[in-house]
Amino acid sequence: METKAKVTIHDIAEKLNITASTVSRALNNSPRISDITKKAVLKAAKQMNYQPNNIAAALRNGKSNIIGIIVPTADRAFFASVIRGIEEVANDYNYKVIISQSYDNYDKEVQTIDALFSARVDGIIASIGKNTEDFEHYRKAQERGFPLVLFDRTTDALEVSQVLIDDYWGAYKVVEHLIEQGCKRIAHFTNPRKVSVFKERLRGYADALKDNGLPYDEDLVVPSNLQLEDGRASMEQLLKLKEMPDAVFSASDFGAMGAMQVLKEKGIKIPQEVALAGFSNDPFTSFTDPPLTTVDQLSITMGRRTAELFFQQLKAGDKQFIPQKTVLKPELVIRKSSLKKEHK
Amino acid sequence: METKAKVTIHDIAEKLNITASTVSRALNNSPRISDITKKAVLKAAKQMNYQPNNIAAALRNGKSNIIGIIVPTADRAFFASVIRGIEEVANDYNYKVIISQSYDNYDKEVQTIDALFSARVDGIIASIGKNTEDFEHYRKAQERGFPLVLFDRTTDALEVSQVLIDDYWGAYKVVEHLIEQGCKRIAHFTNPRKVSVFKERLRGYADALKDNGLPYDEDLVVPSNLQLEDGRASMEQLLKLKEMPDAVFSASDFGAMGAMQVLKEKGIKIPQEVALAGFSNDPFTSFTDPPLTTVDQLSITMGRRTAELFFQQLKAGDKQFIPQKTVLKPELVIRKSSLKKEHK
Repeated sequence: METKAKVTIHDIAEKLNITASTVSRALNNSPRISDITKKAVLKAAKQMNYQPNNIAAALRNGKSNIIGIIVPTADRAFFASVIRGIEEVANDYNYKVIISQSYDNYDKEVQTIDALFSARVDGIIASIGKNTEDFEHYRKAQERGFPLVLFDRTTDALEVSQVLIDDYWGAYKVVEHLIEQGCKRIAHFTNPRKVSVFKERLRGYADALKDNGLPYDEDLVVPSNLQLEDGRASMEQLLKLKEMPDAVFSASDFGAMGAMQVLKEKGIKIPQEVALAGFSNDPFTSFTDPPLTTVDQLSITMGRRTAELFFQQLKAGDKQFIPQKTVLKPELVIRKSSLKKEHK
Repeated sequence: METKAKVTIHDIAEKLNITASTVSRALNNSPRISDITKKAVLKAAKQMNYQPNNIAAALRNGKSNIIGIIVPTADRAFFASVIRGIEEVANDYNYKVIISQSYDNYDKEVQTIDALFSARVDGIIASIGKNTEDFEHYRKAQERGFPLVLFDRTTDALEVSQVLIDDYWGAYKVVEHLIEQGCKRIAHFTNPRKVSVFKERLRGYADALKDNGLPYDEDLVVPSNLQLEDGRASMEQLLKLKEMPDAVFSASDFGAMGAMQVLKEKGIKIPQEVALAGFSNDPFTSFTDPPLTTVDQLSITMGRRTAELFFQQLKAGDKQFIPQKTVLKPELVIRKSSLKKEHK
C-alpha cells in the first residue's frame, strides 16, 4: 500500500477491517482492547509507515507546549483580558493555554494544580485565590522544576516572578483627581480582608487626603464585600451621616455602581452633588449614565508581561532563574461621573 | 528509615543529598537527569516505600478525571456562566474542568482539540466557533472513544449530544411583547452570517410580525456584526428613514446598547418614542439607564444539562451511547426600556 498521502488510523482500520476508534485505542494502549488486536494494529502501523501525530511526539519528548493558567474566575473582565494577553504571547511561542478556575476556594486551588500537572502542562501562570494563606501547593509545583509566574494577586512568600499593578498609585490618582474637582468629603468603599490590593488602595486614598491637607474621617471609610448590593448598602449608610460626602471612591466598579443606583433613586445629582469613581475599568462602566470614572488595570499588558516572564524562565531553566517583579502603573480613566467642575 | 508519615520526594532527596526537584525529575524520567541518578532515585524510592501521588495513579489507570471545555471566548458572560454550570455538576462527579479558547478561529479550534487530548482529558464539551464549517476535528475526537457534547453553537453534522436554546422562541416572545406595548414599526438588528442562532432570531422576529398582522419591512432589518459600534451605526441608519421605527429589537445586547447611546444623544425618549430590546441578558443590561429588556439564555441551566449529558455518555460507554438533544426555552426579561404603555 504505497500512497503519497499521510497514512491515517482510517487506513489502518480499513486494512484490518476494524473501526478507526479501535485502532486509536490500540495505539493508545487502551485496556479495552485485546492484546491480539493491539499487536495486529502495531504491526500494520509499522508496515504502513504510520506517523503518529505531534501530540504523541510531544509526549515522548516530555513537552506538551501547554501553559496552565489558574484564575479565581475567568468571567471577571479583568482576568479574562489578562488571559487574552497571555495567549497573544503564547501564540508567538507556539504554546497553547488551558485555564482552570479556583473560584477563590483554597481546596479547589490545590486540586487545580494537581489537575494541571496531570494535564502535563509545561508550567503554570496563576493569580492566587482570596482565601489562600498557605502556598505549599505552589511550592510543590515549583519543585517539579516547571516555571511558575504569578500576576495581580501574588505573594512574597514564594521565590517567584510576579507582575503587579500599583494599586496604591491608582487609588492616589483617583483621590487627587476628586480633590482637583473640588471634593472635600471623599468617602471610600474598601474590603477589610487580607488581600493586599484593597489595603494598597486604602493606603493610596489615605495618603492623597493627607498630602492635600484633608482629614481622614473613619465615618467615610466603609468596609464591605464590594459587590453591587454592598455598594448600595454602603451608600445608604453614608446618606445617614449628618453631613453627606461630596464624593465616593469605591475600590471596585460594582461597589460604585451600587452607589450610583442609590443616588439616582434619591434624586441626588452625579457629579454635581456627589462625584463617583470606581476601580478596574470593567466594560460596563462606560455604559452607565453617567459613565463612571475608574482606574484601568492594563490587563492585556499585564498578561503579555506575565507570559514574557514565563518564557524567559522556561528558556533559562532552573539554574539561571532569577525571580523578577514587574509593577505596572494603572491609568486613571476620567468620565462624567467625577467631573464636578464642568457640571456645576 | 521507618516513619509513619508518608514518604515524600523531600525524604528521598535528603537521603541521597540531592534536591527535591532532581528527585521529582528523575521520577518523571526527565531527559535532564542522568541515568545514574535516575537509578539511585528509583532504588531509594523503592527501599523507602515511596508512594507516588494520585495523579500518577490516575495516569496509570488511564483516567484523568478532567473535562476539556472549548469555547469561543471565556470572557463573554454567557460562556462564562455555562462553564460555571458545567463545573457545578463536574464537582459532584469529582471531575475538574480545564478551559481552552478558540477565539472563533478555525485553526485554533483544531489545535485546541489536540492540546486537550495531549492534556489527557477524559472528554470534551464544546461550543463551535463562528467560522467553523468543517467538523473533522470533532469527529476525530469522537473516534478516540471519548464523550463529546456540544452546547449553544452546535451542528447536526455530528452524531453528538447537544444542548440548545430555542432562539426562535426567545425572539418571538420579545417581538410579541413589543407589539403588546403598542409598537407597530419594529426594527431588527441581525447578523447575516451562517450562525444559526441569528437566523433563528430573525425567523422568530418575522413570524411574530406575521402572526400579529404586521408587515415585514426590509428597511427595518439591519444586518451587522452586532457589536456596540455596529448598533450605533445601525441606529443612525434607521433614523435616516422617512418614518422612524417605534421599537428596536437587537439580536445582541451590545447592539441594543449602541442604539441606546445614539437615541439618548439625540434626545429621543426610550421607551416613549423608541422601545428597545436586546438578547442575552448580559450583566451590563441591568446597569443601563433605562435598564434594557432582553432574553435570558439560562446559561447555568445549559451548563448543568450539558454536563449531565456528558456524564451519562461517560457512564454508558461507546456502545450504549444514543445522542440526545435538549432544547431550553429562554426567558423574556422585561425592563423599563420596552415598557411603552406605562411611560406614555
